[in-house]
Amino acid sequence: MNYTSIKNILGKIMVLLAFLMFLPIIVCLCEDESERNLISFLIPITLLFVIGKLLMVKKAENNSLLPREGFIIVALSWIIMSLFGCLPFIISGEIPNFIDAFFEITSGFTTTGSSILNDPSKLSKSMMFWRSFSHWIGGMGILVFILAIIPESKDGSAMYILRAESPGPQVGKLVSKMRVTSRILYLIYVFLTVLQVLILWLGPDAKMDFFNSLIYTFGTAGTGGLGVDVGSLETYTAYSQYVIAVFMLIFGINFSLFYLILIGNFKEVFKNQEVKLYFIIVIISILIVFLNIYNNYATTEEAFRHAFFQVSSIITTTGYSTTNFADSSLFPSMAQMVLIFLMLFGACAGSTGGGIKISRINILFRSILKKIKNMVSPRKVEVLIIDGNKTDEEMVNSVHTFLVVYMIVLFAVAFIISIDGYDFTTNFSASLACLSNIGPGLGKVGPYENFNGFSYFSKFILSLEMITGRLELFPMLILFSPKTWKKRV
Amino acid sequence: MNYTSIKNILGKIMVLLAFLMFLPIIVCLCEDESERNLISFLIPITLLFVIGKLLMVKKAENNSLLPREGFIIVALSWIIMSLFGCLPFIISGEIPNFIDAFFEITSGFTTTGSSILNDPSKLSKSMMFWRSFSHWIGGMGILVFILAIIPESKDGSAMYILRAESPGPQVGKLVSKMRVTSRILYLIYVFLTVLQVLILWLGPDAKMDFFNSLIYTFGTAGTGGLGVDVGSLETYTAYSQYVIAVFMLIFGINFSLFYLILIGNFKEVFKNQEVKLYFIIVIISILIVFLNIYNNYATTEEAFRHAFFQVSSIITTTGYSTTNFADSSLFPSMAQMVLIFLMLFGACAGSTGGGIKISRINILFRSILKKIKNMVSPRKVEVLIIDGNKTDEEMVNSVHTFLVVYMIVLFAVAFIISIDGYDFTTNFSASLACLSNIGPGLGKVGPYENFNGFSYFSKFILSLEMITGRLELFPMLILFSPKTWKKRV
Repeated sequence: MNYTSIKNILGKIMVLLAFLMFLPIIVCLCEDESERNLISFLIPITLLFVIGKLLMVKKAENNSLLPREGFIIVALSWIIMSLFGCLPFIISGEIPNFIDAFFEITSGFTTTGSSILNDPSKLSKSMMFWRSFSHWIGGMGILVFILAIIPESKDGSAMYILRAESPGPQVGKLVSKMRVTSRILYLIYVFLTVLQVLILWLGPDAKMDFFNSLIYTFGTAGTGGLGVDVGSLETYTAYSQYVIAVFMLIFGINFSLFYLILIGNFKEVFKNQEVKLYFIIVIISILIVFLNIYNNYATTEEAFRHAFFQVSSIITTTGYSTTNFADSSLFPSMAQMVLIFLMLFGACAGSTGGGIKISRINILFRSILKKIKNMVSPRKVEVLIIDGNKTDEEMVNSVHTFLVVYMIVLFAVAFIISIDGYDFTTNFSASLACLSNIGPGLGKVGPYENFNGFSYFSKFILSLEMITGRLELFPMLILFSPKTWKKRV
Repeated sequence: MNYTSIKNILGKIMVLLAFLMFLPIIVCLCEDESERNLISFLIPITLLFVIGKLLMVKKAENNSLLPREGFIIVALSWIIMSLFGCLPFIISGEIPNFIDAFFEITSGFTTTGSSILNDPSKLSKSMMFWRSFSHWIGGMGILVFILAIIPESKDGSAMYILRAESPGPQVGKLVSKMRVTSRILYLIYVFLTVLQVLILWLGPDAKMDFFNSLIYTFGTAGTGGLGVDVGSLETYTAYSQYVIAVFMLIFGINFSLFYLILIGNFKEVFKNQEVKLYFIIVIISILIVFLNIYNNYATTEEAFRHAFFQVSSIITTTGYSTTNFADSSLFPSMAQMVLIFLMLFGACAGSTGGGIKISRINILFRSILKKIKNMVSPRKVEVLIIDGNKTDEEMVNSVHTFLVVYMIVLFAVAFIISIDGYDFTTNFSASLACLSNIGPGLGKVGPYENFNGFSYFSKFILSLEMITGRLELFPMLILFSPKTWKKRV
């Protein structure tokens, strides 16, 4: 194990996080908040800076990393981010309990958007800013950011880290492009964020002041879902709801496509099966939900808007809501089932969204159709074409394995948290909402409820599940596998 | 497509089914039932016999079958069995609606044990006998029976049929043994059945007369779950409950093991990982459920008995109950989650039980552990050892594919039946109960409820799902795939 390299990289993450924590301090000063709030940020900043620098004192002689070291770095950095990121909540006393604060900031960084707060509007502005800003940080990934701005090892070790943090199955191909273009991708991310803030802020919605526009844009851009209030966006105007619904869909698209559009490579864009499938699923889902909820709302426009918003919010794993979709008198069983499907599906690979990812769903269905064709006529060799390229068996198998592990984690966590005695719908949807980084589920964890009813034990397990989901399973599984630490190969 | 061969085999199935229908006629005569009941069996017997013989008139010149023809034969025979098997219920007027009757007998043949009857005790004895006898027929598989008693084609075409009907992943290996020993396996089946009838009948339970002993033994042997009453076995004595619990476990074991024990090959028996894992899962599950329900029952013995019985019933996918496990004041959330896990797992391959099968779960977990080890140290080649033999990639992949398709069918049917507006727990557990051939689920389809609340559309879909589950997915998927019928390869 190359401990020095691992320490160096973790040190860099901590220093970067220290810098990012200066932003809520600006909010603190603008809003003229108490000294305690100021100190709540300054203590973790100091800690992060000092420990980070200490970890970087001894430079690694050898920068090259093994794959498992890449996984470990990614898993550890996300845990460290959450451990230090929750300190402001605890020190300020606004979320005094450690597990609660850890859950809340993990939900932020992993862009889940689940909350344990009964009334988030009681938070001070700086704390609320930090809570939502964590969505924006976590959306693109902090390690990707570091590696984008500080290129270093020449032997491709950084690839292992990128591969472990980037979402989607075709990471190899995607990441090699990403390494070249990651700065441009970050610029696109910043540009879209600024655009959304302006459209919301300058719009006709009186409740969307500059601060609220910022909060909801962070939640949208990172596909997170934390807001300034319970009940999410119900009280905002249709204008704001439509704007956010459209931007959620945009942030659910593979960012490489925006880059391809920017450089004028439309041929590649049209070859992309994932984004086509993404929009097909969105349109069909809106249609089914709309027909299913039509009678429960006053006007056609309202029913359409709620169908559009909820589908857009859930497929991108954002988790905002404009209506209580856990209430079966508003969203009947079938509309809820559509949302559960979308929770599993998730957004496109290479976006800020979570879930299984549409590209995996695409490979999955095509490989199964191929398998059935193969059983019908075993002598004929069928080739699986994804985005115009032949796909090798290995990728198909790894997608199947991914799905199986996904299901195992989903059911295992639902089982573990059932110790608190909630009903099956609540446990299952809570586990799914955390694993797919959605936020709200159904039952007792619906969009108008929160996760505070769970025991500290369950909250801790769900926090780890969020990180597991955000990092696409394997980094966390490898971190907790005894084999990783025993053998030196 | 070798239509003549397909017709010949389907004809044989129909004639065999005609003969099997004479058994309820004996009950009819013994119980001195109405003429209408007698006619209700005689009409389908005549139809089956005539149509069956007609299908056999033109002999196939070529007996060899393509794999897809094997799948089609199996899928069609099970549909035909259910179509003709439900006629007595309709003609007698005891279950007048076609979909209801179709659901009930499909539930019988597929050994599911779900019912649409509000009060099964109102059925006449002959109808009740037929309903439960279908479990016994379906348990071992009707095609296996035919091929066991009438060996014919020499080129191994029969293998495709056996492969399509036999449960479990290692079919190739298992079936080649089965072909030689299938008569012995059937003898073991008959012997265990007779043994259980005697132990129940001669036991101290006054309610267990000869007829009831037969009914519950059919349900146990086929791992079906239909009984003479609602509320299943609650009103029977602890003796009967323990006997049935033990026999359910026995019928959940791979029958090849009994054969190996008979011929004294204990070495092979001890090499079998599946049966070890089966008992480990049973013991752990009983322990968790027992600890979870301990406080909800009067005595320790009662809590243990209910834990033992429910675990045994659900893992073998039988579906009998001695207590209302859908009631969370008796079975809290965690105990229910254990049962949902067991519903997915199912019994051993080569038993009469349904579900995913323990051997697949075994391969699954080992392959995932291997995958994680591989990610930790990619240069080291890990070999997967199952039952002392190296396992090839192909089998692992087919197990993963199976699991993925299982999940897709599970969620897809849960989605389709959600049109009736029931809650998620009901829809999900109903779909799982039918796909894994369990019988009862949770929520509105708990062991003290029935499936009558669903619409005819949903009942029909669930009936098809039962057959899909019993035949392990692919025969039904291939039957309904347009490709199967379009191309001639």
